[in-house]
Amino acid sequence: MNAEVKPDRRLRAGIVGGGQGAFIGRVHRMAVELDGAASVVAGAMSSDPARNRASAAEWFLDRAYDSYVTMAVDEAKRADGIDFVIIATPNHLHFPVAKAFLDAGIHVVCDKPIALTVEEATALESLAAQRSLVFGLTHTYTGYPAVIEARECVRAGQVGEVRKVLVEYLQDWLMDPLESTGQKQASWRTDPKRSGESGCVADIGTHCENLLEYVTGLEIKSLCADFRTFVPGRLLDDDANILLRMNNGATGVLTCSQVACGESNGLSLRVYGSAGGLEWHQQDPNILVYKPKGQPHQRLEVGNGYMGTGAKGVTRLPSGHPEGYVEAFATLYRSIIRDIWRHRSGLPLAKDYPTAADGVRGLRFLTRAIESSRQGARWMDL
Amino acid sequence: MNAEVKPDRRLRAGIVGGGQGAFIGRVHRMAVELDGAASVVAGAMSSDPARNRASAAEWFLDRAYDSYVTMAVDEAKRADGIDFVIIATPNHLHFPVAKAFLDAGIHVVCDKPIALTVEEATALESLAAQRSLVFGLTHTYTGYPAVIEARECVRAGQVGEVRKVLVEYLQDWLMDPLESTGQKQASWRTDPKRSGESGCVADIGTHCENLLEYVTGLEIKSLCADFRTFVPGRLLDDDANILLRMNNGATGVLTCSQVACGESNGLSLRVYGSAGGLEWHQQDPNILVYKPKGQPHQRLEVGNGYMGTGAKGVTRLPSGHPEGYVEAFATLYRSIIRDIWRHRSGLPLAKDYPTAADGVRGLRFLTRAIESSRQGARWMDL
Amino acid sequence: MNAEVKPDRRLRAGIVGGGQGAFIGRVHRMAVELDGAASVVAGAMSSDPARNRASAAEWFLDRAYDSYVTMAVDEAKRADGIDFVIIATPNHLHFPVAKAFLDAGIHVVCDKPIALTVEEATALESLAAQRSLVFGLTHTYTGYPAVIEARECVRAGQVGEVRKVLVEYLQDWLMDPLESTGQKQASWRTDPKRSGESGCVADIGTHCENLLEYVTGLEIKSLCADFRTFVPGRLLDDDANILLRMNNGATGVLTCSQVACGESNGLSLRVYGSAGGLEWHQQDPNILVYKPKGQPHQRLEVGNGYMGTGAKGVTRLPSGHPEGYVEAFATLYRSIIRDIWRHRSGLPLAKDYPTAADGVRGLRFLTRAIESSRQGARWMDL
Amino acid sequence: MNAEVKPDRRLRAGIVGGGQGAFIGRVHRMAVELDGAASVVAGAMSSDPARNRASAAEWFLDRAYDSYVTMAVDEAKRADGIDFVIIATPNHLHFPVAKAFLDAGIHVVCDKPIALTVEEATALESLAAQRSLVFGLTHTYTGYPAVIEARECVRAGQVGEVRKVLVEYLQDWLMDPLESTGQKQASWRTDPKRSGESGCVADIGTHCENLLEYVTGLEIKSLCADFRTFVPGRLLDDDANILLRMNNGATGVLTCSQVACGESNGLSLRVYGSAGGLEWHQQDPNILVYKPKGQPHQRLEVGNGYMGTGAKGVTRLPSGHPEGYVEAFATLYRSIIRDIWRHRSGLPLAKDYPTAADGVRGLRFLTRAIESSRQGARWMDL
Repeated sequence: MNAEVKPDRRLRAGIVGGGQGAFIGRVHRMAVELDGAASVVAGAMSSDPARNRASAAEWFLDRAYDSYVTMAVDEAKRADGIDFVIIATPNHLHFPVAKAFLDAGIHVVCDKPIALTVEEATALESLAAQRSLVFGLTHTYTGYPAVIEARECVRAGQVGEVRKVLVEYLQDWLMDPLESTGQKQASWRTDPKRSGESGCVADIGTHCENLLEYVTGLEIKSLCADFRTFVPGRLLDDDANILLRMNNGATGVLTCSQVACGESNGLSLRVYGSAGGLEWHQQDPNILVYKPKGQPHQRLEVGNGYMGTGAKGVTRLPSGHPEGYVEAFATLYRSIIRDIWRHRSGLPLAKDYPTAADGVRGLRFLTRAIESSRQGARWMDL
Repeated sequence: MNAEVKPDRRLRAGIVGGGQGAFIGRVHRMAVELDGAASVVAGAMSSDPARNRASAAEWFLDRAYDSYVTMAVDEAKRADGIDFVIIATPNHLHFPVAKAFLDAGIHVVCDKPIALTVEEATALESLAAQRSLVFGLTHTYTGYPAVIEARECVRAGQVGEVRKVLVEYLQDWLMDPLESTGQKQASWRTDPKRSGESGCVADIGTHCENLLEYVTGLEIKSLCADFRTFVPGRLLDDDANILLRMNNGATGVLTCSQVACGESNGLSLRVYGSAGGLEWHQQDPNILVYKPKGQPHQRLEVGNGYMGTGAKGVTRLPSGHPEGYVEAFATLYRSIIRDIWRHRSGLPLAKDYPTAADGVRGLRFLTRAIESSRQGARWMDL
Repeated sequence: MNAEVKPDRRLRAGIVGGGQGAFIGRVHRMAVELDGAASVVAGAMSSDPARNRASAAEWFLDRAYDSYVTMAVDEAKRADGIDFVIIATPNHLHFPVAKAFLDAGIHVVCDKPIALTVEEATALESLAAQRSLVFGLTHTYTGYPAVIEARECVRAGQVGEVRKVLVEYLQDWLMDPLESTGQKQASWRTDPKRSGESGCVADIGTHCENLLEYVTGLEIKSLCADFRTFVPGRLLDDDANILLRMNNGATGVLTCSQVACGESNGLSLRVYGSAGGLEWHQQDPNILVYKPKGQPHQRLEVGNGYMGTGAKGVTRLPSGHPEGYVEAFATLYRSIIRDIWRHRSGLPLAKDYPTAADGVRGLRFLTRAIESSRQGARWMDL
Repeated sequence: MNAEVKPDRRLRAGIVGGGQGAFIGRVHRMAVELDGAASVVAGAMSSDPARNRASAAEWFLDRAYDSYVTMAVDEAKRADGIDFVIIATPNHLHFPVAKAFLDAGIHVVCDKPIALTVEEATALESLAAQRSLVFGLTHTYTGYPAVIEARECVRAGQVGEVRKVLVEYLQDWLMDPLESTGQKQASWRTDPKRSGESGCVADIGTHCENLLEYVTGLEIKSLCADFRTFVPGRLLDDDANILLRMNNGATGVLTCSQVACGESNGLSLRVYGSAGGLEWHQQDPNILVYKPKGQPHQRLEVGNGYMGTGAKGVTRLPSGHPEGYVEAFATLYRSIIRDIWRHRSGLPLAKDYPTAADGVRGLRFLTRAIESSRQGARWMDL
């Protein structure tokens, strides 16, 4: 924690969604509490009242609400009300829930995508800006120390001018029609009403876009997207291949799939420039491979003294003690919590985490990719 | 949590040691709180009063004690006193601190080694048994799902009769005389007064012994140990190679080092039997390689449906979302907390975590290894 | 060697091109002679007479020719003339040299691409067919046992219906303007007169196409290709990203580069189907990873008893004794030599190696990719 | 080939042993002929006359002998007689065959172990020296470019003072009583009459010893060896664990097994010094990992410009084109053939390959290890 702000208590968080049966709710709780800087104390964890109460009891929450609207209003009034809300619902609720809490003057941490449309996203961005509230978006993967190191390598010129980027995110959990079994996550992820106009690309393709732009500092300028739905009867895409052209002249490929048999959560990034290459795999997250021109590959391992200040600042364990997904998630929360303290101290926000602006950017990418694919995979500018 | 016990609140934990500057204190806090089943509320975190108070404030503890003796007595008296204590001090304090809290009727979680001598260890084992108190020992590595899977593979006969075991733990953080710089951890780890009669083997060789016996279900019957101190001026061993003979006729090698240049925390285990082989690496902890006779190697990845019930029961995230050291640690805590609830409910303890008995076993191994080495690496029975 | 044909001597080979300074000439010699079934005895190894003679002397050739035309005519007349010719020249000479030897009734083994245009390729295919001569094309990578195993896995239904294919070939040897230094290979590879209308895609993209179609048994139906020339002043593409649609409805990505910093010769293939996945990397060529649905990944290692008959038939060493590029090359030669013996025995050819037909197919792919890219990366049918 | 000697023809080799059914015979032929500098023209390939003739015919040999004694005498008399003999028989014949050819004035390349006893080994060493004949021993693994690079790293001081060495060689081909099925190789390898007093350690443990001493430039000073025979009924060891003390004060472990389920040919070496570490795995032979103190691991890949002159001098292909076991073998032959040309030119021998002296050293190691194990794994000086 920097010098300006001096926390004198744990912040209080509320959660909307994430009740029993949802994997992501538990992850939020582990992540937000990991550093001992915040506790979840209130929640509207399920639209099903019984499940909501059971979930809240299991978490030993102080207050359980049947409605997120009531929660926003009531918590805003309490002296010991929540400092921020965590939104862990299906996609279609991100916008109304975020709006309700921002309207109530409560900081927001929201799962991605920020909303279903660019318009909604922009509205949230404006609202947060107007109220000077913190808005964090859980693009978890940018919380990994090795990803931060990768960005620093690019910034320091270690890869030179970026020429080619290859980013992929391969899973297989939807390779069969899991949604027809009633599995909760599969049901809403493949339902246009709750997920929006895209399945796979909205869910994981946007992580690729975010990671790629985060590490390289470049923007996707245009794209040519070929979506597919391989599982019969499914209503949304479960796979896509996308050609990219970046704003500096680099080219790239983004490929994502939820039907890639044998792949669990295979997010990876490769960047090739005029002076070096970089390679990172989310399933081996503490290693960054740097490939300097004409020299042996270097295997940078998180936790070592040679890592940059950015990566060091977010590493919790000595080298060789594996950190994982929860720590990456907690690192986003750490920055967000710090910004909430800055807000409480009247200091300007640092916004050193994914924000509503990233959410807008992600939806712009998604919208153009959907459009490209619908037109038979034609090139579209972002 | 099984049906018999129904927690109705988070347990309260206290901590002795682990103040600012100690890495392991923070790990204990993250691990014990990860599942939302316990909170650290009191501490005697440093023998330096100022550091103790600063550490407690940083953690937002309710109560800070200058003395662990006072803490044990006072907490035992309080209605809202701690349910268990965490001992994260240098080795020489494990015994007196554990004894103080057991005497006060408070459950104990203690870093390994449990004590400095077999006698002390046995005394603690007896004391805990007499008082029917929970005694957990933090052999963290047995908390990894893939390690639990490995044990289940052995039990299910998938490796057949074990013939050969290779276990190693290689680090390099002591390859220079770090202790002479005043670095806190290095100072006490290399100081016979605080660490005991061994450095490297006590610190990490005992993890090898524990992991090996845990996975195979075998016991080391005899050993031939060759200790070395490579860094000039150092008082304790910083490296050792040990031949093993197991109680079923299998043979093995245990090698450990804190001067193995380039190795961070390289604990790994290989087991070869008449029907299969197993391989696990702590730095890639979610993968277990199984090598069935005459068939391709299988790469078992934690989080998948094909894993055994033991591993599944301690996996928090979907496959491909890396879990790490903190989760393994938290898994020990989860079992320990469950046993504390059993104790509170008057149920028999499950002891499905490393206990004082493992501590006794570890010290017996250590003592015999020291003796073997002192006699020029002669064979010794355990 | 199968029962029908019984070789009673080593075959005699001649070589055109491949003189001192060319890496591929030596590879041909090692490969063709590896199994002791053929010897190189004659050559027109360089258009530079002095280099030609020096090269021939270094190889202890019986006969050196200054002109491949003379060589074709003279060798055809000799009782101890060559049985087949190896063409290891720059691309623009493939057609005339192949034609000359086919016209002389001599079997041909030719480096890829078979020619510069589809028309030339088709002409060679027809000519070889008319004369019933053997025509082998050195798509080396299909000679690896693990690649053959991959094809057998697909054929046996182990991956089910193929849905997605990812093939890549990344190098970095042209990341700087090496051609301006006079380096021989770089000079002709980047020269449209000697290399044809494409650089990178012609050189290595065609290996991707061949490997992909070989393993999956599918055909590329349409493509959308984005070529790039990153090195200033270069006349041909040095990088490309290509979206693919296969004739069974599968989609895919083919990416290739000769400016991917840090990559030596990174050809790799991933295939995802409804029942399993496959993964192979040329730089670790003896391993095939099979990912059966819902089961652990299997690491198939060449040389083991569980491998299929195809892979076993082309494996020369026990498992764990690495075979490499020369062996893969030699495996193509083994099949070609066997077919030459079939021809000598009046038996029908087996054509179980890349032939002129593959050359035609490769040029069709290449031509359409060039056209697609020129039109701004539009979709083209093959 | 260096400037002094100018070969004007391929050398002529003969072979004893290695007939049909023996894997190693074919490897010798591929390796010795790989660079086009020698051809196998004569042989006494089997003690079974029919198999001998069939083997010779399959290889298109000019001359087949029923007896190696006759072969030595007759070839020595011929103007076009062999320049050197390759000995690829079971171990017990190495000494008499080598002696016969040395007596006839013919250079020798012999499989390891050079003989069955230190006395025999020393006799051969003396004989070769007396006659100034070349004597090469096929410790193949020192022919890998990455192994040569490793030695250069040590010599250049890049690892500093060596402290710890870990060498292992794990196979599983004898994990069942294969010898009882009549399998040729298993039969003699487990037969004391043909293999000598040790099985596993003689066969592969000696490769460990040779590799270790080759790379580090150190000598094993004393050892403590624990041999085992795990397969019931087997007469020789099939597994061993050996503690090592090196002549510079370093310590080490050598472990080898032919019953390590799932391991094909797992020879690997790790060296740890005061300034760096090295790691090499035979099954991924073109990679050497260098671990400089305080810096990221470097992955040195054979074929790149940054490799040392030693490795470069024995690399045949561009980086990323895998070379394997045959090339390593051929590299030994290349040095041996060069020395035969030196001998023919009256120049002093370079002996830059394993020689009879290494054979003597290996037998000394083996003899002491056997003795140590027989005495219950006591320390023995070499």
